[in-house]
Amino acid sequence: MRGLIAVLVISTFSFNFAAQEQARPSNQPDSPSAPLLGFTAADTATELTWEKRFRAIPDAKRVHANMVQLAGHPHNLGSEAQRKNAEWLVAQYKHWGWDAHIEQFDVLYPTPKTRVLEMVGPTKFTATLDEPPLPGDPYTREKQTQLPSFNIYSADGDVTGPLVYANYGMPADYEELERNGISVSGAIVIARYGGGWRGLKPKLAHEHGAVGCIIYSDPADDGYVQGDVLPKGPMRPPYGVQRGSVADTTIYPGDPLTPGIGSVPGAPRLKISEAVTLMKIPVLPIGYGDAQPLLAALDGRVVPAGWRGGLPLTYHFGPGPAKVHLKLESNWDTKPVLDVIATMKGAEEPDVWIVRGNHYDGWVNGADDPISGQSALLEEARAFGELAKQGWRPKRTLIYTAWDGEEPGLIGSTEWAETHAGDLLKHAALYVNTDENGRGFFGAGGSHSLELLVNDVVRDIVDPETKVSVWRRQQAALLLHGGRRPAPARPNGGNELLTRATLPIEAIGSGSDFAAFIDHLGIASLNLGFGGEDRSGTYHSAYDTPWFEDQFGDKEEVYGPVLAQTAGTLVMRVADADVLPYDFKILTETVKGYDTELKGLVKSLQDDAETRKRNLDLNLYALTDDPKNPVHAPGQLVPPPAMNFAALDDSIAALGKAAEHFNQAEAQMPALSPERRKALNAELLLAERKLTSDQGLPRRPWVKHVLYAPGTYTGYGAKTIPGVREALEQGRFEEAQEQIAVVAKALEAEAAFVEQIATEFGAGK
Amino acid sequence: MRGLIAVLVISTFSFNFAAQEQARPSNQPDSPSAPLLGFTAADTATELTWEKRFRAIPDAKRVHANMVQLAGHPHNLGSEAQRKNAEWLVAQYKHWGWDAHIEQFDVLYPTPKTRVLEMVGPTKFTATLDEPPLPGDPYTREKQTQLPSFNIYSADGDVTGPLVYANYGMPADYEELERNGISVSGAIVIARYGGGWRGLKPKLAHEHGAVGCIIYSDPADDGYVQGDVLPKGPMRPPYGVQRGSVADTTIYPGDPLTPGIGSVPGAPRLKISEAVTLMKIPVLPIGYGDAQPLLAALDGRVVPAGWRGGLPLTYHFGPGPAKVHLKLESNWDTKPVLDVIATMKGAEEPDVWIVRGNHYDGWVNGADDPISGQSALLEEARAFGELAKQGWRPKRTLIYTAWDGEEPGLIGSTEWAETHAGDLLKHAALYVNTDENGRGFFGAGGSHSLELLVNDVVRDIVDPETKVSVWRRQQAALLLHGGRRPAPARPNGGNELLTRATLPIEAIGSGSDFAAFIDHLGIASLNLGFGGEDRSGTYHSAYDTPWFEDQFGDKEEVYGPVLAQTAGTLVMRVADADVLPYDFKILTETVKGYDTELKGLVKSLQDDAETRKRNLDLNLYALTDDPKNPVHAPGQLVPPPAMNFAALDDSIAALGKAAEHFNQAEAQMPALSPERRKALNAELLLAERKLTSDQGLPRRPWVKHVLYAPGTYTGYGAKTIPGVREALEQGRFEEAQEQIAVVAKALEAEAAFVEQIATEFGAGK
Repeated sequence: MRGLIAVLVISTFSFNFAAQEQARPSNQPDSPSAPLLGFTAADTATELTWEKRFRAIPDAKRVHANMVQLAGHPHNLGSEAQRKNAEWLVAQYKHWGWDAHIEQFDVLYPTPKTRVLEMVGPTKFTATLDEPPLPGDPYTREKQTQLPSFNIYSADGDVTGPLVYANYGMPADYEELERNGISVSGAIVIARYGGGWRGLKPKLAHEHGAVGCIIYSDPADDGYVQGDVLPKGPMRPPYGVQRGSVADTTIYPGDPLTPGIGSVPGAPRLKISEAVTLMKIPVLPIGYGDAQPLLAALDGRVVPAGWRGGLPLTYHFGPGPAKVHLKLESNWDTKPVLDVIATMKGAEEPDVWIVRGNHYDGWVNGADDPISGQSALLEEARAFGELAKQGWRPKRTLIYTAWDGEEPGLIGSTEWAETHAGDLLKHAALYVNTDENGRGFFGAGGSHSLELLVNDVVRDIVDPETKVSVWRRQQAALLLHGGRRPAPARPNGGNELLTRATLPIEAIGSGSDFAAFIDHLGIASLNLGFGGEDRSGTYHSAYDTPWFEDQFGDKEEVYGPVLAQTAGTLVMRVADADVLPYDFKILTETVKGYDTELKGLVKSLQDDAETRKRNLDLNLYALTDDPKNPVHAPGQLVPPPAMNFAALDDSIAALGKAAEHFNQAEAQMPALSPERRKALNAELLLAERKLTSDQGLPRRPWVKHVLYAPGTYTGYGAKTIPGVREALEQGRFEEAQEQIAVVAKALEAEAAFVEQIATEFGAGK
Repeated sequence: MRGLIAVLVISTFSFNFAAQEQARPSNQPDSPSAPLLGFTAADTATELTWEKRFRAIPDAKRVHANMVQLAGHPHNLGSEAQRKNAEWLVAQYKHWGWDAHIEQFDVLYPTPKTRVLEMVGPTKFTATLDEPPLPGDPYTREKQTQLPSFNIYSADGDVTGPLVYANYGMPADYEELERNGISVSGAIVIARYGGGWRGLKPKLAHEHGAVGCIIYSDPADDGYVQGDVLPKGPMRPPYGVQRGSVADTTIYPGDPLTPGIGSVPGAPRLKISEAVTLMKIPVLPIGYGDAQPLLAALDGRVVPAGWRGGLPLTYHFGPGPAKVHLKLESNWDTKPVLDVIATMKGAEEPDVWIVRGNHYDGWVNGADDPISGQSALLEEARAFGELAKQGWRPKRTLIYTAWDGEEPGLIGSTEWAETHAGDLLKHAALYVNTDENGRGFFGAGGSHSLELLVNDVVRDIVDPETKVSVWRRQQAALLLHGGRRPAPARPNGGNELLTRATLPIEAIGSGSDFAAFIDHLGIASLNLGFGGEDRSGTYHSAYDTPWFEDQFGDKEEVYGPVLAQTAGTLVMRVADADVLPYDFKILTETVKGYDTELKGLVKSLQDDAETRKRNLDLNLYALTDDPKNPVHAPGQLVPPPAMNFAALDDSIAALGKAAEHFNQAEAQMPALSPERRKALNAELLLAERKLTSDQGLPRRPWVKHVLYAPGTYTGYGAKTIPGVREALEQGRFEEAQEQIAVVAKALEAEAAFVEQIATEFGAGK
């Protein structure tokens, strides 16, 4: 699964480059022995020496060899190759001196038995549903062990109906259909990938009465419109298909049958019919080669500009005349999830855990997703093994993992986190996730108590392409085009980036294995990676292979060691620090920003409703309607009432005050006695836990963090302060007011907690 | 040629509809006998009676019959059908009681002798350059009298070179090519239609060293991406070609050999080699059927997102490997331009002229462009003939025209205006242009001294589709989606449109026959039309036929009579008024707006230069560059110095004061004695003349209006206060400062003129 990698940049940056390049963030003077966040001066010197040694170890050739090893065969959950990979991983870890074992869970994992998609009228056409081997790529010939293209957790079904094109199949698309007088009731919806999480497409189609759903990859999104397709270039060929899960992981990820608990032997399981995250209608992904005849057979009105893809045809809404038959049956089997868990015990505070993970299951060969990240993680783990041989020991315990079953729904990480929830809640100080990795720009998302740390770390990592620090390159990208990928220019050319203390890391929602750690358990988490330069259209297809990586990817694995250096240095900083390097000032500022956004959202919802009312009162829709192509006027919007944000404002103010006290106290903390520091850290690691609510979000109690969650109508995309924000967006204004109280309560608890630690451990006591 | 029809809406509008619908603009009380602008109360009643009678006459069936008559055969300048059309038009006018005659000019009109476009490597391909007859459309079968597809005033040439794709071929596109290290020197450029005036494409290609230019119609712009193509739908089929002129009419329009003077017998003519408006390299338009093999044979880097069209291929820059041979030869003949001029003499002030025109030459059949407009104009003229039989006579002289040779470069109107410049400067009070017409929304552009009049008129015209007034429908469009075609939403939902006294008519540049009147002679001018509902991809092709109009256009000619009513009512208001209904208050406000824009332009050029400098100083381009796909950093931008706008500000203030005095005086003017009124109007009609400068714009002395001109790098698109604006945009800052003085001087002259009239004729004297 693709993690949403956010942009990150540090900036206590000015135009004085030479000084900036060496400078540490504002709380760390410009001297090699100046203390790192959470370290005494003496320990800083030691730490920096070990970090330097660590960063010299990761080796590009080994990253590449790892990739070839792990992605050599199709290795989805339950496959023979995946078991071999698990065993190989355990052997590697052991060889490097780690404790390592496989931890198995047994989970619902349906695979295709029958897949039929055909047009039965006005002309006949049967979709091939096959990704042909690619001339030149030997990996693509291993058809017998590939999973065929499918959307896992689709319903079984045998349905026939008129076809309707629904663009990306998102909520706004259904409003457009409605204004054009088109119903999908009893129809089969065809939607293109993109615009939102794939699982929303069949979910919304079902909610609007459709009996089936087809999702296809339009060439405008990752095919020939974007670049040359395979084998000439890296983009998606006509019959390349994006597999992927349609389980509703916004409610809960993991095994659909064991929400909230680990799928261990004997665990109580739901019946399949009771699992609310399973899709209710049949849904199948196809390539644009198979989609073209279907779309060409649609008629009715021409779709609006934003709906047009890159196929050489006029896109119409339908319904019909194309009539489509879709038949899907799965083998609803239970399969083993094989998590690989490796441990390096901490020397001083073994009960404080740092968990590091990247999944290792692919939809097919998965050379990029996820092996590009996993291969680098392995070099990071090997480097720690080497470092241990040189005499280094982390103060705290490292738990390095390779998650299985991420693709079907973050299963390996979720089941493990749920199984060990009690221990994790007590011991885990940090979870660091990676997924894919590639050439280009750094991106980071996660808990904002870690923003200062991340900023600090990437200042010490050299970007291999430009030889400046990773943070300086990232800052350049933000200044020049808004980030890793071109984004709207910032006002004033982004000059504020040159004077701000740090730049934000982004919020994370779901889409990779951090979800159980941050959303469910409230463990401070990060998601890291590099990318943005090599483009591809192989996502979740049989063409994501080692051959492809060598042909079109980072063949020299230039960025593999860099990811290992980045994540590894970050892990070391937390593992070795005298005091856990959290920061609550930036957290406060970030939450204050969210608060301002929510107030703006209330205002804009009110304005939108007022404008809509004006438009309807003035009859503007009818007056501008083309009588030859009439569209329905949209309905009134219900404006939110005036909302009371006082509780939220107050809690943020309290947190700001506490953060200030903590910062004052912090300078003395590294010099506490080892015993006192141990007591401090055992408490401090609980800080992120306070940002959760026991009852969880309305209608999805599994999601407990009050600041971050995947959006119910965006999927992977994060919603910040989700309880309030989604209630506003979805028109539940009483609930929004209630959720303000819930969030304020959590923030007050956080403030009290931080204040108490500052008091208890401040002033060198 | 397509006139740029601007959006127009009145608004002294509030939420009280019943009152608004009947109300006149603020200076006209809400009563049927309340005086119209420029009328006494008594004359208002008479006028409204005659206007009502006038508007009852135009007949949709006759409009349709006119269209079939005039567009029945290919009728470009110099064709046999065009001569027959001219004679038919004269006969019509005479039959309706007008004086009418043909006025002939002899002009340079090259037509194709040789057209060869072929790919000579790496594979062979010969372009068809042919628009095949359309099954079902008999008009498209008349191949022997069609002009083949070509760009008139292309150079002759026989060139071979590598092909380079240049997107729209506009200035920003060449910056992109340069950043990608691609030169077009010695190459043949292929550019798609759109993004700016067609003549700029070969002009810029030539300036960058290309030896030839191909312009094609991409399906993304008016082909299958936009809707079903012929014969199923109205959009451009693969081999449909957009013809059109590439003479540089931004310097001067009309016969390229007689700038500034009429092409009458014995007029001095330039040699062809001396005519600066002729294109310097061969250029040929093609359809996307012919373009596809050429574009598919390009390689090199993939173009950026904004460059991608709708063909099913990956767009590359080139150069090559496609190598192209282009050979063009024309017959450089002199051909007759046949303007039809019809006159109805004014009863009281025959020396005050109102000129009304629409061209009648088409590139092929031209049923839409221009006959949809010309057919309606004829109904307007017939209605005046009928009205005259009922006893009505205009106070002032009406000159109704059918222009020939608009398509090659506004030739008929320009030669006529240049020939009669002396008289027009003395007598012309107004020029009203139309071109195409269709179903939908009203649009108006032109002199802002006429904005109040236009607002006033369209309040009295009923929109046939919604039965509300044309102004109310137009306001609805502006409020809901920014105008006739969807445009960015206005801030605050456009609520300011509900309280402003009027809404602006747009500035006009070039692109239809108003250019000589407004740009060159400074005659108050308007360009009017309806459209925006029926879409088509037949522009300047052999498929713009009466069959097409019946199949996909306004078959019932619902909007033909409406255009006749609108333009005719407007003409009557000016022809019958006691005092010419100019207004200088809105003119002042509009110019004040332009002044503010120019100051904003200075600021944004300064900001852009500062940001560019920062980006270069901080090395941001290199730091974000992908070493596998390096792009060159752009160069420094030269910021404008602080500019002194005081003279312009002062002149606008003076004009505002004069306008106020004029408004106070105006109320008394209609009651002056006929003799005094005659004297007043003979002066007042010169008001727009003051807005010109004798020397014209720098490097294009033909263009004399200081407020409006076609942009040198936009073509049709208007530049307001062009002397200053273009100097700023093009980095000539001293010239910009000089031009501020030139514009200020003209505005001061206008202020003095208006002030003097107010003094001379105010207070009932």
